[in-house]
Amino acid sequence: MKQRVGFVGLGIMGKPMTQNLLKAGSQVTAYNRTRSRTDEVKADGALVAATPAEVARNSDVIITIVTDSPEVREVVLGPNGVIEGAAADSVVIDMSTISPKATREIAEALAAKGIHMLDAPVSGGEKGAIEGTLSIMVGGPKQVFERCLPVFEAMGKNVIHMGDEHGKGQSTKLCNQVVGILNILAVSEGLMLAHKSGLDLTKMLQAIGGGAAGSWMVSNLAPKMVARDFEPGFIIRLQQKDLRIVMETAEDLKLPLPGTALANHLLRSVEAEGLGEKGTSAFIRALEKLADCEIS
Amino acid sequence: MKQRVGFVGLGIMGKPMTQNLLKAGSQVTAYNRTRSRTDEVKADGALVAATPAEVARNSDVIITIVTDSPEVREVVLGPNGVIEGAAADSVVIDMSTISPKATREIAEALAAKGIHMLDAPVSGGEKGAIEGTLSIMVGGPKQVFERCLPVFEAMGKNVIHMGDEHGKGQSTKLCNQVVGILNILAVSEGLMLAHKSGLDLTKMLQAIGGGAAGSWMVSNLAPKMVARDFEPGFIIRLQQKDLRIVMETAEDLKLPLPGTALANHLLRSVEAEGLGEKGTSAFIRALEKLADCEIS
Repeated sequence: MKQRVGFVGLGIMGKPMTQNLLKAGSQVTAYNRTRSRTDEVKADGALVAATPAEVARNSDVIITIVTDSPEVREVVLGPNGVIEGAAADSVVIDMSTISPKATREIAEALAAKGIHMLDAPVSGGEKGAIEGTLSIMVGGPKQVFERCLPVFEAMGKNVIHMGDEHGKGQSTKLCNQVVGILNILAVSEGLMLAHKSGLDLTKMLQAIGGGAAGSWMVSNLAPKMVARDFEPGFIIRLQQKDLRIVMETAEDLKLPLPGTALANHLLRSVEAEGLGEKGTSAFIRALEKLADCEIS
Repeated sequence: MKQRVGFVGLGIMGKPMTQNLLKAGSQVTAYNRTRSRTDEVKADGALVAATPAEVARNSDVIITIVTDSPEVREVVLGPNGVIEGAAADSVVIDMSTISPKATREIAEALAAKGIHMLDAPVSGGEKGAIEGTLSIMVGGPKQVFERCLPVFEAMGKNVIHMGDEHGKGQSTKLCNQVVGILNILAVSEGLMLAHKSGLDLTKMLQAIGGGAAGSWMVSNLAPKMVARDFEPGFIIRLQQKDLRIVMETAEDLKLPLPGTALANHLLRSVEAEGLGEKGTSAFIRALEKLADCEIS
């Protein structure tokens, strides 16, 4: 790959994504707030920078993947941020999940310096990041998207340009989170009814999984619930962060989302139990507490 | 097939199921309340009876597939019902979706005359009935189930024995309906958010369908919502009948199902609009009315 790539944020997702960029032959300059997280990618051949601004000075394309809107603002627009080092006509690709509104504001600040932006949140989790099979939902000008396609293809399989407007990748990710959490509510209520009806839970999942009630969650998350395996996967704290963005966005849009609101509050009951760092399979706890029983 | 099969209820599901039994070489005696519905299967080689009792006199295995618990009680236990004609050691297979509790009561009444019963509700819809690919969830004694397996295999692909207790097939079907309706709520809320965010709805579905938010409903029902195609498929009136049984069962079990209750009431808003005979894709209307807009 000819483009020099910068990478800010070497978390659970960022580290394997960086490694896939290196495997694809890209020059990568990496930054992480906790510097020790850069050791492994350095050993794999990445350059390490002291600040996001230094990453940007070394790169044509600068990827950020951090927790939330404030963190993206800080690493992109804050002191020693990407904006201080990025050349005109370079591209910032934010792959975090943040609000479409914050995305549009950051894109505007970058545009004032002649810097392009794409929002490109992902789904597929740590497994997808490691295997290079992430789904990537991209918003921003098509010609910028096309220029960055080789970068995306080093990290993901299902790369979709959702539109020229900034934020459309983020909006798509929020739809993904809405459908996902309600599919989790679905399997949770199904398992509760099965348990109280005295069914073999695994047989029930097998009976319904191939038909109109089938879903990724029935096939993959529900068996973890049955096994009481609450290890992440995707942690509840971040799921709730994403749902908070959904709810703020729904407020701006004057959009009632009664099911998502219910799921958000049920998951709060799981956080109340102290399970915020567990995986979303622990959603079943909310319904178990309501029914005063455990499914297995 | 050596067993002589009786078939009571030649509705959208019953007619093609009867035809598949005939194709499998079975002798079939059919009854339908509205007699003209038997013309087609008669032309295909079925015998036609004047009452469910007469069906039973001609059959070793008697299948019923009618609307709800009262109808099953009537054709099985009522005047001129199956119980009046069935020989000891014959088997009644009820493939309707009714309550597990009613199933247990009917099984008990039949057992007093030495007649076996299986509850064997199906999923897969009219398409599955025509193609012989229904999922069949069976409750009742295993040896009776095994005796009837050739009959099931003439009509379905995924035939699962859920347990020896009467009603376990029905309980599984109710779990299927819970997960299914919540997956419909999921795609509806996802589409609303996508619409209000200005996304291309088809692209959004494509972006999320392959990942953790993927489901049969995302791939098959959501595109019908986008096309405003509200033709059944599975009609709302029957979906609501099934959810009523879920809610009655949940009451008996002291089981809170807050998501299913919400979906049940949202769908009531669609019935209020006069769309009860439309397909479940019209679920989107409930959320459109809440948000005072249409998605397409």
